[in-house]
Amino acid sequence: MLSKSKIKLITSLLQKKFRDETGLFIAEGGKLVFDLSSSFRCSILIATVNWWSENEKIISDEYITVTEDELKKISNQKSPQGVMAIFEKPSNDFTMGDLTNKLSLALDNVQDPGNLGTIIRVADWFGIANVFCSKNSADAYSPKTVQATMGALARVKIHYLDLPEFIKNCNNLLPIYGTFMDGENIYSKELTESGIIVMGNEGNGISEEIEKLITNRLLIPSYPSNEPSSESLNVSIATALVCGEFRRRI
Amino acid sequence: MLSKSKIKLITSLLQKKFRDETGLFIAEGGKLVFDLSSSFRCSILIATVNWWSENEKIISDEYITVTEDELKKISNQKSPQGVMAIFEKPSNDFTMGDLTNKLSLALDNVQDPGNLGTIIRVADWFGIANVFCSKNSADAYSPKTVQATMGALARVKIHYLDLPEFIKNCNNLLPIYGTFMDGENIYSKELTESGIIVMGNEGNGISEEIEKLITNRLLIPSYPSNEPSSESLNVSIATALVCGEFRRRI
Repeated sequence: MLSKSKIKLITSLLQKKFRDETGLFIAEGGKLVFDLSSSFRCSILIATVNWWSENEKIISDEYITVTEDELKKISNQKSPQGVMAIFEKPSNDFTMGDLTNKLSLALDNVQDPGNLGTIIRVADWFGIANVFCSKNSADAYSPKTVQATMGALARVKIHYLDLPEFIKNCNNLLPIYGTFMDGENIYSKELTESGIIVMGNEGNGISEEIEKLITNRLLIPSYPSNEPSSESLNVSIATALVCGEFRRRI
Repeated sequence: MLSKSKIKLITSLLQKKFRDETGLFIAEGGKLVFDLSSSFRCSILIATVNWWSENEKIISDEYITVTEDELKKISNQKSPQGVMAIFEKPSNDFTMGDLTNKLSLALDNVQDPGNLGTIIRVADWFGIANVFCSKNSADAYSPKTVQATMGALARVKIHYLDLPEFIKNCNNLLPIYGTFMDGENIYSKELTESGIIVMGNEGNGISEEIEKLITNRLLIPSYPSNEPSSESLNVSIATALVCGEFRRRI
């Protein structure tokens, strides 16, 4: 059974403020919880009797059995899937040496939690180990983002930092790529095997401050190029097309 | 001012049943409403005094002025943007002749309204004029999908039909592409300039009935191919990567 204090904790984790304070985040559903438990310490595992009886054990500091109704009350899902876990957020360290010979992503104020989750999933698919987010970007540990990563959060390291400062430090070591309407056609341009790919905000693109630090301006061409079409692509779609083109070449 | 019957109509359009019955759908926000008004007949345009004074006229059968508070009550947006329009759904006709020499998309039970909207936006970007949806797919005219298309709905024709029957009819005329874990690497496989690209359901992929009709099985390779990564890509991401690869070659 769930104590009042546990319910209060779980509800509080919907807010970034409390996720930051406690260093904890929520994940729901068997597959996601299994995937994340391979990388993150599970603090509390909450599941129904049915779920316990049908699934392998996951190592956790604490176990709580709940009824379907109790789970429904604390769940953020339309149809709860029998299990919820509270994980400890990782402390993702890196050194500049980790980034040489590698492709990394940098997100300049990506705001939509679903977009961020999908981008993390794309990064995982294309073997990108590090995603650097500006401090005003969406939180990778919000329930909506965690669910949208479909477990990719277990394999991709997310770093929140002063993005202009970080890009400035990378600028001498690695090419910095970004997409712009006046960039060079990505399909014909030479691409390096390592570098930082910057993706911008949903409405405003890459900020002026960071645009100045981009060394390689790319364009994803629409088709056919002489007819009107959507003026832009969703940021997670653009991320996939850019990463796919880098990886296709290798 | 909004009459009770208008409020009832607008609220009813959140449900597919009533969109089908009335042949109407809702769009919100200036850019989207302008884009859609170029293709669809506007039945009712609802806006605040501020919006009217600052924007060009859109032709509509009926105009209603509302206060910010009234708009807030009927809006599906967190921050209403001053204007809402009720459009007539188009009757999108096609003949098989429209599809030869063209690339088209077929969606086999894509369920998430956001994914569907993003796919329509991707189709528009890559100059794909027709999207064929199985009858159990999400509704392209639901508010969430309409908003996610970012206006692409004005340029891409959506058809709901018996998808297996349709693919059977296309099968002799055009190559039918689909992505599978055991498909051939899309980056090295020969691709035609025309054909039907089938994308499957978020959880279950392409249905067995339609899988049998696929003539060209493709694989989007993950990177590096020998390390564990996400087991699948979001369906809108996979659609973009496949369409992008077809268009890159031309």
